Amino acid sequence: MILTIKKNASIEDVERLVEKLQWMGFEARLSGEEGSYTIALIKGIDSLTAIEQFKRLPHVEEVSEFKHPFKLAAKEFKPQKTVIKVKDVTIGGGTLAVMAGPCSIESKEQILESARIVAEEGVKILRGGAFKPRTSPYAFQGLEEKGLQYMREAAEKYNLITISEVMDGDQIDLIADYVDILQIGARNMQNFTLLKKLGKCERAIFLKRGLSATYKDLLMSAEYILDKGNPNVMLCERGIRTYETYSRNTLDLAAIPILQDLTHLPIIADPSHGTGIRKMVPPMARAAVAAGADGIMVEVHPEPDKALSDKEQTISPATFKEMMRTLRVIAPAVGIQLN
Amino acid sequence: MILTIKKNASIEDVERLVEKLQWMGFEARLSGEEGSYTIALIKGIDSLTAIEQFKRLPHVEEVSEFKHPFKLAAKEFKPQKTVIKVKDVTIGGGTLAVMAGPCSIESKEQILESARIVAEEGVKILRGGAFKPRTSPYAFQGLEEKGLQYMREAAEKYNLITISEVMDGDQIDLIADYVDILQIGARNMQNFTLLKKLGKCERAIFLKRGLSATYKDLLMSAEYILDKGNPNVMLCERGIRTYETYSRNTLDLAAIPILQDLTHLPIIADPSHGTGIRKMVPPMARAAVAAGADGIMVEVHPEPDKALSDKEQTISPATFKEMMRTLRVIAPAVGIQLN
Amino acid sequence: MILTIKKNASIEDVERLVEKLQWMGFEARLSGEEGSYTIALIKGIDSLTAIEQFKRLPHVEEVSEFKHPFKLAAKEFKPQKTVIKVKDVTIGGGTLAVMAGPCSIESKEQILESARIVAEEGVKILRGGAFKPRTSPYAFQGLEEKGLQYMREAAEKYNLITISEVMDGDQIDLIADYVDILQIGARNMQNFTLLKKLGKCERAIFLKRGLSATYKDLLMSAEYILDKGNPNVMLCERGIRTYETYSRNTLDLAAIPILQDLTHLPIIADPSHGTGIRKMVPPMARAAVAAGADGIMVEVHPEPDKALSDKEQTISPATFKEMMRTLRVIAPAVGIQLN
Amino acid sequence: MILTIKKNASIEDVERLVEKLQWMGFEARLSGEEGSYTIALIKGIDSLTAIEQFKRLPHVEEVSEFKHPFKLAAKEFKPQKTVIKVKDVTIGGGTLAVMAGPCSIESKEQILESARIVAEEGVKILRGGAFKPRTSPYAFQGLEEKGLQYMREAAEKYNLITISEVMDGDQIDLIADYVDILQIGARNMQNFTLLKKLGKCERAIFLKRGLSATYKDLLMSAEYILDKGNPNVMLCERGIRTYETYSRNTLDLAAIPILQDLTHLPIIADPSHGTGIRKMVPPMARAAVAAGADGIMVEVHPEPDKALSDKEQTISPATFKEMMRTLRVIAPAVGIQLN
Repeated sequence: MILTIKKNASIEDVERLVEKLQWMGFEARLSGEEGSYTIALIKGIDSLTAIEQFKRLPHVEEVSEFKHPFKLAAKEFKPQKTVIKVKDVTIGGGTLAVMAGPCSIESKEQILESARIVAEEGVKILRGGAFKPRTSPYAFQGLEEKGLQYMREAAEKYNLITISEVMDGDQIDLIADYVDILQIGARNMQNFTLLKKLGKCERAIFLKRGLSATYKDLLMSAEYILDKGNPNVMLCERGIRTYETYSRNTLDLAAIPILQDLTHLPIIADPSHGTGIRKMVPPMARAAVAAGADGIMVEVHPEPDKALSDKEQTISPATFKEMMRTLRVIAPAVGIQLN
Repeated sequence: MILTIKKNASIEDVERLVEKLQWMGFEARLSGEEGSYTIALIKGIDSLTAIEQFKRLPHVEEVSEFKHPFKLAAKEFKPQKTVIKVKDVTIGGGTLAVMAGPCSIESKEQILESARIVAEEGVKILRGGAFKPRTSPYAFQGLEEKGLQYMREAAEKYNLITISEVMDGDQIDLIADYVDILQIGARNMQNFTLLKKLGKCERAIFLKRGLSATYKDLLMSAEYILDKGNPNVMLCERGIRTYETYSRNTLDLAAIPILQDLTHLPIIADPSHGTGIRKMVPPMARAAVAAGADGIMVEVHPEPDKALSDKEQTISPATFKEMMRTLRVIAPAVGIQLN
Repeated sequence: MILTIKKNASIEDVERLVEKLQWMGFEARLSGEEGSYTIALIKGIDSLTAIEQFKRLPHVEEVSEFKHPFKLAAKEFKPQKTVIKVKDVTIGGGTLAVMAGPCSIESKEQILESARIVAEEGVKILRGGAFKPRTSPYAFQGLEEKGLQYMREAAEKYNLITISEVMDGDQIDLIADYVDILQIGARNMQNFTLLKKLGKCERAIFLKRGLSATYKDLLMSAEYILDKGNPNVMLCERGIRTYETYSRNTLDLAAIPILQDLTHLPIIADPSHGTGIRKMVPPMARAAVAAGADGIMVEVHPEPDKALSDKEQTISPATFKEMMRTLRVIAPAVGIQLN
Repeated sequence: MILTIKKNASIEDVERLVEKLQWMGFEARLSGEEGSYTIALIKGIDSLTAIEQFKRLPHVEEVSEFKHPFKLAAKEFKPQKTVIKVKDVTIGGGTLAVMAGPCSIESKEQILESARIVAEEGVKILRGGAFKPRTSPYAFQGLEEKGLQYMREAAEKYNLITISEVMDGDQIDLIADYVDILQIGARNMQNFTLLKKLGKCERAIFLKRGLSATYKDLLMSAEYILDKGNPNVMLCERGIRTYETYSRNTLDLAAIPILQDLTHLPIIADPSHGTGIRKMVPPMARAAVAAGADGIMVEVHPEPDKALSDKEQTISPATFKEMMRTLRVIAPAVGIQLN
């Protein structure tokens, strides 16, 4: 249930109302700012709850039902777009967030050089995997903590913030020590125990859509994090699994405007995993921006052919440079800034 | 097998070579222009054919195998992009081909008004269905020939060319009498008997990707048409069927750069069928252009809510106008012209 | 709308009622037998039609709405299972209909030998393709009329009935001259022009589920045939296209009990196309029977490795014999007879 | 690489060879029994490894490459079927393993009554969820440890063994204290950190196929567990996500014979999740047995309509009884015993 609050209610009025609702047994969450508050009742509603009675509560202008099973993630609860601030970088506020770097951190030199390439293009967010979710137990599993140390060093040198994947609740503290944004991979999108733990941590969360997750599934997974108290969640379309085998996945770009319509959370696209083909990364990055993405995540490596993982989809520094050049032309055409 | 011809060979040399190959029992097709001819051997090759011997033929520079099962549709056979000219309109030559109009032709007034709306935005190609492939036998099946008459009248008034769907070989002559471009719907993409008949007709063909067709399936269907002698084929990505039910289909925009890489045929995107949601048509049209489409097909109706078919995905004149405005900004950013 | 007729109404009463309904502008179809008639109103109902008024018509016991968009195919309209009789063979009446033979008719000897193998196992229905829907225009397209002649000869020798595919309306008369059951392939399941023509022909129709058709899509395609007057339609589950590439298709055996629940038409399974793997044909044939199929269609060839099409999924005479042996054990366990 | 050992080699010979291989830097695993040993080299092979040299090692009969990326799970490594023994119950040894019980443990009474119903049919394995992976954070999340206590009590009373889901590495010890078989849900099939931990635990593991996992993905996930030392893994086909929405999932029964062909691990089918429809559970259970499953998992509840989760797919005691009756007829027809 969503209670829209009267424009003239003060923050004190609203907070008193929230307290009263909590006392009545509901879990109530406040959103908005002076003049446009809304309160979501996310738990405690049952078939006996009389909607009529809520209309009689003080300061309540209107009472409505949630249209979807997600609540805190819904635009109805929070019509203003969520802008996530990590150090001096903002995501979701009209500036294209580009996250670039190698699939895996492979050595100090490799991540330093990657950071240099990325920074040279004005990009602010360095990606790199240290704990890798590989289909095979015999494949390279990542440099783990040592990789994180290398990445932090590289990031500090080039004044970047960082993003890296967390695969298990046990790793959160360790990774959060080194990394600014915690990435949840597609295979863990419905690892609910992990999501609950991330809901209690202080880092911004980058949640990738599962290989066969619907838009609603993705939003329900975000809801798990939001419900536990962490509001800084961004969602990533990274391709879904279909019958088409020419590309690694099918990048579902309609997810971008549809999710922008359903939620206030920032929406990122990953054309590297989305296609699995180097040559297709730049056109799909352009298309993602044209469709309204708040950011893109791209795999770039100093020497793609030598990459220990995902080499088919990793672009070279030259391709990255050229891609950034075209993004600088296309982003303003859809009203997005680029650093 | 592809024979690349020496630069200095004349057209007479090459034609004599083609004749010789035909006489030897191969089906040989010529492509290119003076200085860059290629000959494709599309039939007659078997396990006994010795590649070495072709190298000794006069004027042959190089002999190579086809990488894919499609041949005439392949870029290897014809590296230059196919530009289709229909009256004074060109498709595939660097100008964005916009095809717009109602799902079904419903009355003379409706199609006239649609033509007016479309022409007002500088669009040159009017779409409208007269024979409708409906899932239910009890749904509106189209105005048939009367509808085609109305559309031709409307097109003539506003100096437009037209496109309409053919569902069966029996209808080709009738529809070709009224219409400039013959559309093959997704459900008929592998109606091979129909494809063969279209290969012998004089009209340009607009071939839609089947609901679960791979890129190669689509190109093989185009090959059926090309093989019978009609070179004017354009391909349309219109969304594939996936597990996601929020949208009608999943518009696979990666199809655009991938097909551009595999074939010389023009590639069009249909964001109306591709999403099934009005609001998503403009952002996906923009994304398609950014991804490198040669054109887009869009359903627009004077009064979308009264449309007899596809109303959920049909945009209003106002939305169409606004969409065209943003396309005029984004197309030049990717080097495409717009009338 | 379905009108359930009072038990004591005579056939004359009911026919008079149908006439009256037709006169009133509805398209009315009668089903059932003395004591259990139902009348379906399949066209003419609109938002102004008052359900109440039908209750007042003579002999009407009850008025109900169709639960699904298909009507004549629905069990609500015809609760008794459709039993199709072709010469001395019945399909849908509690005896397992086995349809076996090569993918393509390749020569007189091959189809004669196939017929012998099939007949030896007590199988009554010989399959064989003469007009082949091949993905590639360069692949073997079938022996066409000559193939049909060979098959008829083979069938007559071994006292079998036959089934073969029709790809286009133009072929119906020719194929019906030689063949008992007309097969519509997966790629033509929504070739509505063809379906309408089949609705007017005298042969039984074997309709295969499209590669990405839902159960409802399949039933709506059957409805096209039923609506035009041909009641002898059987449906075939032959695998759908999914992300799994190990098998050619994913045989959706739940389609069998689900379709048995939704429609009165006989349901057949095709484990050859459904898996595309020889070794998997017998276990999936067994599973289909256990799930309640009315029949199975299987590709068998005297020498599978020399088959001109589908050889990976075609079983040998020995495997066929062994498969039939296990079916004779399993069919009685689910109450099905086997010749 | 697989080394097939000569028939006359003793266990001492073979163990010495394994030691030698380990010392050479390979990870070597032994399988088989006197007269039919094989050694798998699962790590340490690279492009420089000379196959020829292995042939010269003592006692080596033959050297071959793995056909697939999974190794310890492959039949090539271990041709004999794995039989898992849990207390007095065996899984995979020719007796149908039926696992039945409610989706969630809801109360002591409910699980006691479920155990009674299950035991009455001679079923030996009781299922029940205590930690529930729910799409929504607001849905019932399970009784957790209290639920496990109730289930153990019920199991002891009726002499059953138990299976319940583990969602996170942190829960393994707790759940293993109460439960005999640890279930990994579809959503966690590629939670590699969890799989590694399960590889080190003493309980048998029941690994469900992910919603869009290929057969190879599933086997690679099993490989993670086997690689860490736990050989008691069974695999479960529980339906995949397709475009069909009538059923909850599409039960891919071909997975059963295909996996039986690829691996030695026992294969179980779950027709409850596989269809999501009560009425379809018995026919699909029958079909799974006919296709060669080693067991089935079924949701049954004393009062399905009151179930707190999955009620649409949970069958009643009466349906369960009837289903077991038909399985007793069909299982012997495919050579499977039923308790």
